[in-house]
Parts: sequence; structure tokens; C-alpha cells
Amino acid sequence: MEIMRVLGDLVCTQRIPGLQSASLRLLENNKGVRLVATDPVGVPPGKWVFTNVGSAARLAMPDVTVMTDLTICGIIDDWDA
Amino acid sequence: MEIMRVLGDLVCTQRIPGLQSASLRLLENNKGVRLVATDPVGVPPGKWVFTNVGSAARLAMPDVTVMTDLTICGIIDDWDA
Amino acid sequence: MEIMRVLGDLVCTQRIPGLQSASLRLLENNKGVRLVATDPVGVPPGKWVFTNVGSAARLAMPDVTVMTDLTICGIIDDWDA
Amino acid sequence: MEIMRVLGDLVCTQRIPGLQSASLRLLENNKGVRLVATDPVGVPPGKWVFTNVGSAARLAMPDVTVMTDLTICGIIDDWDA
Amino acid sequence: MEIMRVLGDLVCTQRIPGLQSASLRLLENNKGVRLVATDPVGVPPGKWVFTNVGSAARLAMPDVTVMTDLTICGIIDDWDA
Repeated sequence: MEIMRVLGDLVCTQRIPGLQSASLRLLENNKGVRLVATDPVGVPPGKWVFTNVGSAARLAMPDVTVMTDLTICGIIDDWDA
Repeated sequence: MEIMRVLGDLVCTQRIPGLQSASLRLLENNKGVRLVATDPVGVPPGKWVFTNVGSAARLAMPDVTVMTDLTICGIIDDWDA
Repeated sequence: MEIMRVLGDLVCTQRIPGLQSASLRLLENNKGVRLVATDPVGVPPGKWVFTNVGSAARLAMPDVTVMTDLTICGIIDDWDA
Repeated sequence: MEIMRVLGDLVCTQRIPGLQSASLRLLENNKGVRLVATDPVGVPPGKWVFTNVGSAARLAMPDVTVMTDLTICGIIDDWDA
Repeated sequence: MEIMRVLGDLVCTQRIPGLQSASLRLLENNKGVRLVATDPVGVPPGKWVFTNVGSAARLAMPDVTVMTDLTICGIIDDWDA
């Protein structure tokens, strides 16, 4: 599971039906690259999280039919980047 | 889900039957690398999108039997690269 | 789908039974790294192609039991590297 | 399977139910990037291990319903980084 | 399929049951990174091989229940790195 930081919400009015109404967050990985993830935890901006990719990202969602490939799995309590 | 920019359509007359008649777009990722994606959304060139890879790319297509590994999942409304 | 260039055939007398008699091509990706792919299209050396990875690579083969993780999916007609 | 070094335990009070009560370790890969893995072996800090990613990470757990994408698979006895 | 060089055997007395008694080899990829792979071919050190990752790595093993994510698929006869 990769460690990333939550930047905020993603504004996106046009998306595939498979994403349903899942919350999308904008994350930044260790290389400074910004990515989009589904968030079943409800994480505020600024927090460090760890994420699942691939099929594990779907299985980590409460509804496994949400078509994501990156999902937030937990908040890291104490982290020094 | 990775964030990429749509460059335009891909011209390709010879392809495997598994891709069927899916629209193929040429994208550019954050490293400037160009990739080919299926596009169920219908995105005009210049737009920023986020994409699914792997099995999620197939499940994101209206027809899940299209043999892709990269699919556009939504358009980002407001994005400053 | 990644964009790569076909360098030629791969000479390989010893391989796992799961690859059967599939044609193997030597490709070069955008970083100059050489990779081995199965080729259901029949691509001559020098051509630019796009490829599927992972389970999509197997599903892109006429026979999905061929144990590959990289398959050529189409030839790009017009491409300026 | 990638080779990584175990840094220690991950402190994480808030996580998805799918991770259950699996032990989470903080690892460092060959690029100095820190990652989070499930640990069915019980590895002390400082040890070099090799890891599975993707669906293999779940299948490597005693309970395959634990929603991980990175699992420690073994300890390397003798390793010079 | 990635091209790598076999460095030798991996000494590992403690590993998950899912790896069974599979032979583990130490490989080096094109970036000089060392990885661990299962070897159904029986490759001597120094040889260049190509490998499958992900689910294809498991399917490439004679016994598909071996929990690997990297498997040697063939020896390249003639290779100039």
C-alpha cells in the first residue's frame, strides 16, 4: 500500500456511471504526482493516508461495483514525510 | 486513477478484434509520455481527464468485453497542471 | 495502452509450455527499455504499436490460455516519436 | 517479488473494515520509498524481506479476504543491500 | 514480459506456506534492481531471461497455486544487454 497525502476534493461533473456517487479525492504521492482516489474513510485535506491499487481498490470499497483503481484504506496517525 | 491530458484521436487501421470499434484517444501523462486509451465519455482534445488501468479499465467500459487496459473515467472541470 | 516500437523477433528455444507456440517480439518502450511481447497481429520490425499489459494481455490473444503479460494490440499508422 | 527492508510497525487507528486486524508494517523499497504491507510472517524491524503485490498479495495472506495489495512473503537470510 | 538477468539462488529459510517448495531465483532488471522470482525452467546464473508479472506469473507455474508475482518464462538464447 502506497503512502500519499490528501490535497482535497476533486471537482468532476462528467464521469462514467461505474463510479456512481463515490467521493473522489485528489492525492499527492511521494514523487509529487497528483492522483484521484475513491475515499470510503472520509479523510480531511492534509492527512497522510495509505492506498490500495488495482482489484484491491475495488474490494476495499463498501460497494465493490464502484469502478475505481485507487482507494484510500486508512489514515496514518503519526507521520513524518 | 491517474490524471492525463487528451491530445487527440489515434489513427489505427490495424488492431485486434477484441478492441472492437472502441474510440481510441491519445493521452499524455504527467511525465510527458503518450499513451492510448479507450474513451467511453467522449472527451475533446486539450481536456484533463482521470483514467483507470488494469481490469478496472475494462469494467469502466459500457461493454466490458472490450480488451483495453486504460480507460478514461471522467473529465476534470478545473485543473491547473 | 503503452506505445512501443517493434525491434524484431525474439530467439528463445527454451520456454514454459504455457507460452505455447506464440510469436514473441522484441519491443522497445519510450525509455529505451527492451521488452518481450506476444504478437497476434503480425507486426514487421520498425513499426510503432500499442500494447496491453496484465490480464488484458491474455484476453487480447486469440487463445486466452497463452501465458503472456504483454500483447501487441494494434499498429499505429502515423506516428512521430 | 520485490526486495524491501522492514522499518517497523504502522500506527493507524482508522482504517477500512476490509483490512480487519491484519498487522501492518512500514517498509522501505530500493528507492527509499516507504510503503505499507500486511505481514503474515511476523518480521522484526531491520530485516530484509521480499513481497508480493496485487492479487498475489491477498492470496499470500492466511485469510484471503484481507484487502491488501502488498504482503511480506519471506525473510531473506543473508543480504547485502 | 520484462528482460532480466539471473544472479543466483535466494537463500530464504522463512517464507509463507503459499510459496511451497518453489525454487526462488535472484534476478536483476534493466535498472540494476534485484528481484525475487519463481523459476519453473531451471535457469543457471548469468543467463538472460524474460519474466511474467501479476496473475500471469502464477499461471506460468506448473502448479498455479504457488503464490508468486514474478516467474521466469524462458531463456533468451542470444542477447546483447
